[in-house]
Amino acid sequence: MPSYKAPIDDIRFVLEDVLGVERVSMLPGYEDATPDLLTQVLEELAKFAENELQPLNRSGDEEGCTFENGVVRTPKGFKAAYDRYREAGWTAVSADPDYGGQGLPQVVNFVMSEILSSANMSFGMYPGLSHGAYEALHQHGSDDLKALYLPRLVDGTWSGTMCLTEPHCGTDLGLIRTKAMPQDDGSFAITGTKIFISAGEHDLTENIVHLVLAKLPDAPAGTRGISLFVVPKFLARHDGTPGPRNGVACGSIEHKMGIKASATCVMNFDGARGWLVGRPHGGMRAMFTMMNAARLGVAMQGLGIGEVAYQNAVQYAKDRLQGRSLTGAKVPEKAADPIIVHPDVRKNLLWIRALNEGSRALGYWLGMQIDTALKHPDPTARQEADDFVALMTPIAKSFFTDYGFEAAVKAQQLYGGHGYIREWGMEQFVRDARIAQIYEGANAIQALDLVGRKLPMHMGRLLRRFFHPLGAELEAAMEDPATAEMAGQLAKAYGRLQQATAWVAQKGMGNPDEAGAASADYLRLFALVAVGWMWMRMAKAAAAKLPTANGNAAFYDAKLKTAAFFYARILPETSSLFAAIMSGAKPMMAMTADQF
Amino acid sequence: MPSYKAPIDDIRFVLEDVLGVERVSMLPGYEDATPDLLTQVLEELAKFAENELQPLNRSGDEEGCTFENGVVRTPKGFKAAYDRYREAGWTAVSADPDYGGQGLPQVVNFVMSEILSSANMSFGMYPGLSHGAYEALHQHGSDDLKALYLPRLVDGTWSGTMCLTEPHCGTDLGLIRTKAMPQDDGSFAITGTKIFISAGEHDLTENIVHLVLAKLPDAPAGTRGISLFVVPKFLARHDGTPGPRNGVACGSIEHKMGIKASATCVMNFDGARGWLVGRPHGGMRAMFTMMNAARLGVAMQGLGIGEVAYQNAVQYAKDRLQGRSLTGAKVPEKAADPIIVHPDVRKNLLWIRALNEGSRALGYWLGMQIDTALKHPDPTARQEADDFVALMTPIAKSFFTDYGFEAAVKAQQLYGGHGYIREWGMEQFVRDARIAQIYEGANAIQALDLVGRKLPMHMGRLLRRFFHPLGAELEAAMEDPATAEMAGQLAKAYGRLQQATAWVAQKGMGNPDEAGAASADYLRLFALVAVGWMWMRMAKAAAAKLPTANGNAAFYDAKLKTAAFFYARILPETSSLFAAIMSGAKPMMAMTADQF
Repeated sequence: MPSYKAPIDDIRFVLEDVLGVERVSMLPGYEDATPDLLTQVLEELAKFAENELQPLNRSGDEEGCTFENGVVRTPKGFKAAYDRYREAGWTAVSADPDYGGQGLPQVVNFVMSEILSSANMSFGMYPGLSHGAYEALHQHGSDDLKALYLPRLVDGTWSGTMCLTEPHCGTDLGLIRTKAMPQDDGSFAITGTKIFISAGEHDLTENIVHLVLAKLPDAPAGTRGISLFVVPKFLARHDGTPGPRNGVACGSIEHKMGIKASATCVMNFDGARGWLVGRPHGGMRAMFTMMNAARLGVAMQGLGIGEVAYQNAVQYAKDRLQGRSLTGAKVPEKAADPIIVHPDVRKNLLWIRALNEGSRALGYWLGMQIDTALKHPDPTARQEADDFVALMTPIAKSFFTDYGFEAAVKAQQLYGGHGYIREWGMEQFVRDARIAQIYEGANAIQALDLVGRKLPMHMGRLLRRFFHPLGAELEAAMEDPATAEMAGQLAKAYGRLQQATAWVAQKGMGNPDEAGAASADYLRLFALVAVGWMWMRMAKAAAAKLPTANGNAAFYDAKLKTAAFFYARILPETSSLFAAIMSGAKPMMAMTADQF
Repeated sequence: MPSYKAPIDDIRFVLEDVLGVERVSMLPGYEDATPDLLTQVLEELAKFAENELQPLNRSGDEEGCTFENGVVRTPKGFKAAYDRYREAGWTAVSADPDYGGQGLPQVVNFVMSEILSSANMSFGMYPGLSHGAYEALHQHGSDDLKALYLPRLVDGTWSGTMCLTEPHCGTDLGLIRTKAMPQDDGSFAITGTKIFISAGEHDLTENIVHLVLAKLPDAPAGTRGISLFVVPKFLARHDGTPGPRNGVACGSIEHKMGIKASATCVMNFDGARGWLVGRPHGGMRAMFTMMNAARLGVAMQGLGIGEVAYQNAVQYAKDRLQGRSLTGAKVPEKAADPIIVHPDVRKNLLWIRALNEGSRALGYWLGMQIDTALKHPDPTARQEADDFVALMTPIAKSFFTDYGFEAAVKAQQLYGGHGYIREWGMEQFVRDARIAQIYEGANAIQALDLVGRKLPMHMGRLLRRFFHPLGAELEAAMEDPATAEMAGQLAKAYGRLQQATAWVAQKGMGNPDEAGAASADYLRLFALVAVGWMWMRMAKAAAAKLPTANGNAAFYDAKLKTAAFFYARILPETSSLFAAIMSGAKPMMAMTADQF
């Protein structure tokens, strides 16, 4: 059975030493969110995740959710754990105090997402979906809708869903067929079938709030004709308590590769009463509010699995005695050496570790930028932060989930045959991690979002939020002996990214297939430069701490060594990505469809 | 539900147009194995695999094997399919006619392994294990043992296993504890526990023949003290029919990530009667006979999954209507274009296809080299072929299974959310493919075998079997306009391989950790050059056929386009592998174990 300890020291290093999280508490409204308070929250959350959620992860996978007569049951222990989660206030952490929230910064959500995903990714889906529904209603709902739904989503007695996909359309939501017929009382009758609805039906909460994409009778074709509705499982009585059942029911649950304790539902809407959220035909905008939050949550799932996979792989590599070091026995008194003596074992561990820590720094930084975008008094600062988040969201979603899956595979591989056996738990990480590359926009869609929407947006303005500060930091880092070598290497990779960017922009203008052909490799190149940037910052912070670290010197020294590993063994991938990008679309487009 | 058609045209292209399989029928003993006969065999096998085995693949995964009171039951339909498989003579194809075999060349086994793995990898495990047991007994058994066991393994009424791993040791077999006590009648009493025994117990055959590694009382420590024994489930009566039960029993079966229809057993030997195979303490040599055959069989599993994953992904990409081509609607009369219009979709399809076809050429070539090593009248030719197989076995095992897994993941990804749902079958390919990277020597062990044993063997002689002919073919290919551009690119990658080889040999001599640190990347670099070589040959063959191809022109044209894709989009990976290799062991070894 795998184990998990929340990496509190690593998290605090990133927040405090690298990103300067105390700046968040200087934003209006976040005055209480001092680093000390954040540490307290973090320690409480760590305890809860380690003691209450992680022990349910294997059993939840084995038992799965069950479906009978329209009722979905979560695995043993989930309901009790959810009640404690809710009662401890975890559903309210970053929510608006006007609706019962604790008003903590959004960056806390990123830490929570990571830790929940490490401990029990399936469990984390339920509050995660509620958070998306909360965001959509909070930003786009009328005052009446907010007054009814938000306090209950915030205190966790009700949960939320996002009902987007239909059997014939996922990526291409312009094709949806679910209809919304206006009723005399201002509500709408929603009819249609939605699939792949996470938390669509379950036994954790007294009500479920569906955010549903549907088309009004006068809707224009395509995505411009989509509207968003809120459709509760139980219609609320005047006092807000759940009343009669609404016309929405779960038709079945999916049998999936993983996240088996998360109920993935077919939801049938049969004239269900719903209320419009936002403008008629304005559903795509509201949906993106949910989607962007969800995409970053999914990114953190990749990191969360990467972290727990790493911890268990390290433990096994230290425990498993097998063979001898190539340079002679290291533990001659035992029958064999632990396998951590082998360079290839270490290579795989360091690969996971370097990407976990680099992604953590990038992910939490994104969280802080969201806080800046929400709360900074200067509109320019808000705009710049918002640009940065828009640019980096597809990169984080795609890259974190791709490497997170690869991390789970590498960690499983270290276990040899035991890694393939269910009871060891490593193969569950692989199966669970796999979905994160697929849902909330498959990773290829993220890459198209990056090259097709984010790069050209506002004449390349978003891009400058990344290129300008990186360029400035690189120049400074070249002057600092602690980072000069890294800065030189990163500058080379950054040069490739700049060249590739110009190439994609120019070629893509003439022929969009050229941008499409480059997109996935370009996104990965971008992500590696971004993670390299974070490692340069982490190396700088660790080097600054080291001279006075005393008992903690090994910790900061390990940061420097992991940075060196990233630059030696991972960053070089940028050279082959660059070559692949530059080879253009022809190798793909030359084949006729019949030739495949 | 996935479908499968054996790729007969592609297989014949490789065998006939690229590798000149007619040369095999010139070897003494293979006179009957003309290309026409091979085609007939191939077509019969294709029918059997498509009609009898593929339909049991999903149901076998859902049902799995069951264990009750020491009895293992395979999923519904497996026993009937196995009976038909056996009765049709498929267990006897490449076996020695002296024991009832059909005496066909070994290369046929490679084709069979691919097709069985595409249709039903779990099913293919049962005859696959029997084949390993057959090889060990055929090469190392006494005449008495051969007379008893071989005819029954060949006609498939008995099946075989390889009992190597124990709970505390897999890779490091020197640690095994299973004991063999000599008995007065020349037999041995075998006592110990073996784990991860594929086909250790099942209901397909009337008897099961275990090949068991154990230690004699006077055994020296480590792998020099290992002996090999044959231990039947039922002791044979004088007439060779199964008699009383032997002291070996299945204690349980494993619950695994995949290959669920293949029974993976804990086998308890409690004074079971066994007979020595080969010399006392000579078990490692005999085991490697089994292992090398098994490793190449596992390599073909990687290809087999890659092929069936490709076929289904192509079908889905042509069927799934979603969104529009970036360059404008391609099927404007429908609501959306099929997703195969997208360059990124094509990139992933071509990635799988290029590695499938390149690996097929390399794999079948290895099969033909085994035939040369067995049958060629000239001992030098036999030796050279044997060298080549020894060199390439770890490369094929590791690379084919790595890319086969990646292929299954990419194919699954094309299905979006549907890829994550069990009934679509794509996620089963991922789960099944995963084991091939782990068993028969985890892929990291293959890489150590390559750099630690195969490179230095006979002063680098094995390496020359690859470098010399490649060098010669490259020179010729530079002169040929059809291949000159490819040859130039391949020469560059080959140059990297040569430099990396020299580096690994030189650095590894001083510090074996340097070779270990490079090993996995070096193996992949080697494999990409080898597959590039195969694509150069395939391009040459296709270019030669094209002018007179008439109705088949699109087929050969697709080969040329796939070759171009390989060179543009896959071969560049060699540059980053080279950079990673050259960065040496320090980034891995600098960390203390505690710092992980």
